[in-house]
Amino acid sequence: MSADHAGRGPDYAARRSALRGLLMENEVDALIVTDPVNIRYLTGFCGKDSALLVHSWDTGNDEERTVLGTDGCHRDLVAVQAPGLRAEIASAAARRIVELAGEWHVGRVGYESHVVTVEQHRRLVEWRTGLEFAATVGLVEQLRMVKDSHEAARIRAAAVACDSGLRAVLEAGGVRPGRTERQVARDLAWAMFEHGAETVAAATVATGKNSAVPRHRPADVTLGAGDLVAVRCGAVVGDYHAVLTRTFVLGRAEQWQREAHALVAAAHEAGRAALRPGVPVSDVDAASRAVIEAAGHGKSFVHGLGHGVGLRIDEAPGIAKTGTGTLLSGVAVTVEPGVYFPGRGGVRIEDTLVVREGGPELLTHTSTDLTVVD
Amino acid sequence: MSADHAGRGPDYAARRSALRGLLMENEVDALIVTDPVNIRYLTGFCGKDSALLVHSWDTGNDEERTVLGTDGCHRDLVAVQAPGLRAEIASAAARRIVELAGEWHVGRVGYESHVVTVEQHRRLVEWRTGLEFAATVGLVEQLRMVKDSHEAARIRAAAVACDSGLRAVLEAGGVRPGRTERQVARDLAWAMFEHGAETVAAATVATGKNSAVPRHRPADVTLGAGDLVAVRCGAVVGDYHAVLTRTFVLGRAEQWQREAHALVAAAHEAGRAALRPGVPVSDVDAASRAVIEAAGHGKSFVHGLGHGVGLRIDEAPGIAKTGTGTLLSGVAVTVEPGVYFPGRGGVRIEDTLVVREGGPELLTHTSTDLTVVD
Repeated sequence: MSADHAGRGPDYAARRSALRGLLMENEVDALIVTDPVNIRYLTGFCGKDSALLVHSWDTGNDEERTVLGTDGCHRDLVAVQAPGLRAEIASAAARRIVELAGEWHVGRVGYESHVVTVEQHRRLVEWRTGLEFAATVGLVEQLRMVKDSHEAARIRAAAVACDSGLRAVLEAGGVRPGRTERQVARDLAWAMFEHGAETVAAATVATGKNSAVPRHRPADVTLGAGDLVAVRCGAVVGDYHAVLTRTFVLGRAEQWQREAHALVAAAHEAGRAALRPGVPVSDVDAASRAVIEAAGHGKSFVHGLGHGVGLRIDEAPGIAKTGTGTLLSGVAVTVEPGVYFPGRGGVRIEDTLVVREGGPELLTHTSTDLTVVD
Repeated sequence: MSADHAGRGPDYAARRSALRGLLMENEVDALIVTDPVNIRYLTGFCGKDSALLVHSWDTGNDEERTVLGTDGCHRDLVAVQAPGLRAEIASAAARRIVELAGEWHVGRVGYESHVVTVEQHRRLVEWRTGLEFAATVGLVEQLRMVKDSHEAARIRAAAVACDSGLRAVLEAGGVRPGRTERQVARDLAWAMFEHGAETVAAATVATGKNSAVPRHRPADVTLGAGDLVAVRCGAVVGDYHAVLTRTFVLGRAEQWQREAHALVAAAHEAGRAALRPGVPVSDVDAASRAVIEAAGHGKSFVHGLGHGVGLRIDEAPGIAKTGTGTLLSGVAVTVEPGVYFPGRGGVRIEDTLVVREGGPELLTHTSTDLTVVD
């Protein structure tokens, strides 16, 4: 997608304006942003090893209050990706930004304490002159949770690549006994590319007992008749992610496989139904988990129900037992309950959705019914 | 590659033993390792959100002095990837590891201050009881620089995927006027998969003036006759990376293009020739940079000469003007000089090599002569 440069792209100035509101709430005069994904969100610039200074002054225009520090290697990239953004080119970009904050007499300047390492912080402190540093956690991430229409459109396009890619592989008979996990995973990657993915973020296949290992990586293991096969697709369009997981049975499904699949499908349905603005994320997790616990398999659901998706494949909010905060309209999330029986197999069903007032907008549309692949 | 599990795999215990030597040099009794790549290097375990405690006690066997903290989601993955490793399963893995260090009365415990964020550090300090924390920087990274035979074999296999993938795309006529950067990049990704890549780490194509933007990302831009086309391939085998960059001319090359290519090829040759054990990395950069500076284009070489490659596509050592330290035999690096003329085009030539006593072992073998693609 080239929406950023052709026609009206995302309103980065509006995002920085929203951030300024948070800076005032947090009583800092400026924020030094060093997470490359947060810089990407606030400016459109995709480089690394850079630092962005956003000042909360309520005078002057946005351009006067935003400066990107980056190295010579990125000079032309800034001009293309973030035209109009003031850029300071320096080999030590963060240092230059700290010096600039000093020159501006910023006063109290926030840094991303969940991003900045202890070692980086040591250097920030060395470089400062007349600045007071304040740890801030997740300010830009808080804004990133709620997707605007540009962002939702990209996640939707990424979801299409997941759905269509998986369907293409299934229709071509790619998932069948005798093939290896790696072969199927490669087909899947290619099919997602063919259906619009700009990058493949996940193409994983876990067969038989491997389906019981939540983070299994595809191996030279052959799919066998009767296996549960968990297939996870992750696609990226315009830097935004969508994910989709389905679990199939090869050949005739045994009773325990049918039951496990039906259980996870019910938990998945309950989790989706609980996605409403204003609902605590821990309640969403609980709504789905209750279904699996009631069946006596609570201990087999070893992870949280889901998480945010956007510029990262896993971002705020975390939807888990210990998650905090409530959902807002426009938050994009996964819902992905699973049960795992070590040595036998597991089932996970995962969709990508956007929380909306009238009920969640489902972005991945592959059927959640048990598909027996012959 | 499944060398880890079939036949004799990497000797993780030997790596931990080498780390213990560094711990004693740095006067810490144990190290809490939280970088997932460092954990992977020391144990074979590939999960995330985990923490490894390595104690330097010189009594007892290795198993008694190494504990991995990870969450329930990774329980079965540990058993597969790191059989024999003691694992503590806890939802807050790092916390459990800190508690364990307290129970063991470790005393002075190092943490990776270049990895641990300020926020994570705050929590580590909250959890500790009777422990003294010490910031350590790059201990495991120092070990990772020198590749053992298992690691070199994987980088070699990844280099084959780069060379063969690029050749396949060229032979199929994939690089020609009228195609887009994205189409060529996709072909390249597929061809690397076909030639053994397990993951594609980079498949980038920059044509015409985009070739002057070092970190350009492939776009829906059409390759035109007379363009310089920079093609970068990055492949991963068994978690190890190799990279290869070549710059082509489409159709008849103009004089300035020939000169730029010849200049970069000469700088590349000089950089490669300087790769010897015991040589300061800044001297390697200087040897190559001198060639470009002598031609009056020093300002167009906007980045360092190269960097280490291994479990990460960019790791220690950095080979740059400001780089510190000397090369050792077995260090795997890129050599990638470039010149960039904004608005016109640029040339970069990049190989992956391993420093050896008798001169560097070249892993990527694609010709560095100027190739004019008709």
